[in-house]
Amino acid sequence: MNKTRIVQILRHGQPDEAVLIQGWVRTTRALKGFAFVELNDGSALANLQVVINEDFPDYEALVKRLTIGSSVAVEGVLVASQGKGQRIEVNPSKIQVFGESDPETYPLQKKRHSFEFLRGLGHLRSRTNTLGAVFRVRNACSSAIHQFFQERGFLWVHTPLITASDCEGAGELFSVTTLDPKNPPKTPQGEIDYSQDFFGKPAYLTVSGQLEAEIMAMAFSDVYTFGPTFRAENSNTSRHLAEFWMVEPEMAFCDLQGNMDLAEAFLKHIFKTVLEQCPEDMEFFNQRIDQTVLATADNIINNQFERISYTEAIAFLEKADRKFEYPVEWGLDLQSEHERYLAEELFKKPVIVRDYPKGIKAFYMRLNDDNQTVAAMDVLAPKIGEIIGGSQREERLDILEQRIQDNQMPLEELWWYRDLRRYGTVPHAGFGLGFERVVQFMTGMGNIRDVIPFPRTPMNAEF
Amino acid sequence: MNKTRIVQILRHGQPDEAVLIQGWVRTTRALKGFAFVELNDGSALANLQVVINEDFPDYEALVKRLTIGSSVAVEGVLVASQGKGQRIEVNPSKIQVFGESDPETYPLQKKRHSFEFLRGLGHLRSRTNTLGAVFRVRNACSSAIHQFFQERGFLWVHTPLITASDCEGAGELFSVTTLDPKNPPKTPQGEIDYSQDFFGKPAYLTVSGQLEAEIMAMAFSDVYTFGPTFRAENSNTSRHLAEFWMVEPEMAFCDLQGNMDLAEAFLKHIFKTVLEQCPEDMEFFNQRIDQTVLATADNIINNQFERISYTEAIAFLEKADRKFEYPVEWGLDLQSEHERYLAEELFKKPVIVRDYPKGIKAFYMRLNDDNQTVAAMDVLAPKIGEIIGGSQREERLDILEQRIQDNQMPLEELWWYRDLRRYGTVPHAGFGLGFERVVQFMTGMGNIRDVIPFPRTPMNAEF
Repeated sequence: MNKTRIVQILRHGQPDEAVLIQGWVRTTRALKGFAFVELNDGSALANLQVVINEDFPDYEALVKRLTIGSSVAVEGVLVASQGKGQRIEVNPSKIQVFGESDPETYPLQKKRHSFEFLRGLGHLRSRTNTLGAVFRVRNACSSAIHQFFQERGFLWVHTPLITASDCEGAGELFSVTTLDPKNPPKTPQGEIDYSQDFFGKPAYLTVSGQLEAEIMAMAFSDVYTFGPTFRAENSNTSRHLAEFWMVEPEMAFCDLQGNMDLAEAFLKHIFKTVLEQCPEDMEFFNQRIDQTVLATADNIINNQFERISYTEAIAFLEKADRKFEYPVEWGLDLQSEHERYLAEELFKKPVIVRDYPKGIKAFYMRLNDDNQTVAAMDVLAPKIGEIIGGSQREERLDILEQRIQDNQMPLEELWWYRDLRRYGTVPHAGFGLGFERVVQFMTGMGNIRDVIPFPRTPMNAEF
Repeated sequence: MNKTRIVQILRHGQPDEAVLIQGWVRTTRALKGFAFVELNDGSALANLQVVINEDFPDYEALVKRLTIGSSVAVEGVLVASQGKGQRIEVNPSKIQVFGESDPETYPLQKKRHSFEFLRGLGHLRSRTNTLGAVFRVRNACSSAIHQFFQERGFLWVHTPLITASDCEGAGELFSVTTLDPKNPPKTPQGEIDYSQDFFGKPAYLTVSGQLEAEIMAMAFSDVYTFGPTFRAENSNTSRHLAEFWMVEPEMAFCDLQGNMDLAEAFLKHIFKTVLEQCPEDMEFFNQRIDQTVLATADNIINNQFERISYTEAIAFLEKADRKFEYPVEWGLDLQSEHERYLAEELFKKPVIVRDYPKGIKAFYMRLNDDNQTVAAMDVLAPKIGEIIGGSQREERLDILEQRIQDNQMPLEELWWYRDLRRYGTVPHAGFGLGFERVVQFMTGMGNIRDVIPFPRTPMNAEF
């Protein structure tokens, strides 16, 4: 007999259906004449109730083994539930206990544990309601991302994790090496002799796949990355990870307008798909974690995003009837409080701000005709702030080279990036989305360490 | 007007349809009265032909700019082609050149370049027929992998790339550090003081996500990883990469039988899907790269895999009417020549060999009742050799701990892995598939460096 997933039974199971279910006991309550066992197999938030009659063979001994965390297989028949809280339940004919779980020592007790405590139990915390729901939503969101791009003919491209350049200059890097740290080879000048390292030069973990994605877009027109990226920033906050996943689409023959259109369609798609695929999990987050998550999702799905220029944004902020902590001035970057004001208070829906001053944006963003701004865009969402950052890329070789030099970057090292502009250059654009940030916002989880299975942060690489 | 992808036009375009296409020129031939321009946008192997009549405005100047590698947008109408080699072509009304490409210096000339030469042009090589086909197949295969598991209710789980343990013991590791290599902090004993490193201890790039995937399977029943893994092996061969992608499903309540069933269904699915989605690319590989790739795919899709034990395999090899370079003896690992003999010559179809001697397999594989073998399996395919390796995992705590100690591994460090057996342990199984190996076999490409966009190998981390 093949097993049936609990999510299928809860959604579609009918009385008299014979089933085999396999999962872990969440609770067992023995009342007069019956034991009620709540089983979970990770396919759904809700448990499936198994009602064991005291006539069941070896009833007493069996019920004693069905402790929290123990694993079982149950064969039986579905029956309409008489009790509250569930439509259907299982009348068992055979119960097999695979692995017991000593309730005295099992680290997950029935009481509510703090998320911080659970982080110390990275090997067990996915068995809790909240983390279970998070990782089902994470999977649904991942899957929606691939679906969105594949349906539109984008290729998933795998850009390298190990890189010999730091051309984005996006903060601190992890070194990747096979040199003996106690006794590294040295040059006659006393420097580390990287010619003897694995790659023959210093190597790092990547901070972005964008530049390589541009290479691929110049051959396949539309591509996206979805992979891990790294920051060696010593930031112990609820929104930073040293290792996290990024999504970076890159489109040839695309300008800022097309980029904004894609970003809006993309966000709507992933929120909509997750609501459709994980309705119980999303309802749970709305009830238990953050009462605004469904409203925020609804807001993103059902509103046309507002689109304003950075210059207009500054004007709105200057007129705002409130005091900001950080200064508002043309040429300064927008802070989180400014972004949230625009999305949450002023427009009450997602806002795309475009055309930022060139001084606060990366060298590869396309210079506008005003010579002061670049064709950058940030998507700001209510309760969330910046969720996507992107730009049209500078496709004109002479201007790109000037911008590289203005930014004190190594022209020589970027020879291949410049070649893309030398041979068949095209207008192109793309954006980046921090995947864990999105899952955090979607679920309302307060700490980003609780939306990735095994978070890497300063002083922590457990499991 | 929205652009139409060339693959759509080639497959479904009809005469009189108005189209906008955007792409790169592969060749331009000016004959008497006409210029024939072959355009490619990366969506298909074949080019779309644009026929420019000499009456076209600025004909002479325009054609001069349509050199190999230049980028253009063409508006026009589809017409049935009079020429050989294509069903349909474009009669242009408007042609815009975005980026020129100096034919004197453009590194990709029309002549055939060696793959080795092209590796030095990682930023341009995807514009060639072969590499273009490879990366379309790679994408289709990636997509088929996600589809296979998602349809079966598996969760995609992201296991960590940076890890503080080397419990698989699978060879040499890359260190990940933020310590200053020239002047690392030392303990009073003169050792490197890793308490001052980013993670507070030595950290490495992972060689496998399996152990963490087991954690997730114990909560969600069925999960899979699909992400990068690393080996710091100094192997300069056509089958080794320092950075490559792995697929690792892990199933709770699953034994070796279920594992073999899944592996067989999985391989059939990915080969079948790629043939359906990339028929022209696969035909191209069969014609130009390796005349056996279609037959091999067909063999995998349409045969029931043979299943034999290791002990039976040894008996077959001992009886074989040929001489092997490596010895055949119970207890020794099978070499590539043995594996290929079984799949290619003896059974002439994929073979799953199971139940290997415990001495040649990893500590986590389940000990069989004979106390000599473990519930391991390798899938061997004709022309390919080993394509999948997997096992049922040891779910019994006492036996696992004995195996850990027998392998001289740190019992203490694996506390969380042992906890999985202490609390609600279940029979479980999984396997691993090297993604680039599969793409290499699928396409017949001789060197694994040509099936990943930016290969990382000893002394090489370019682009």
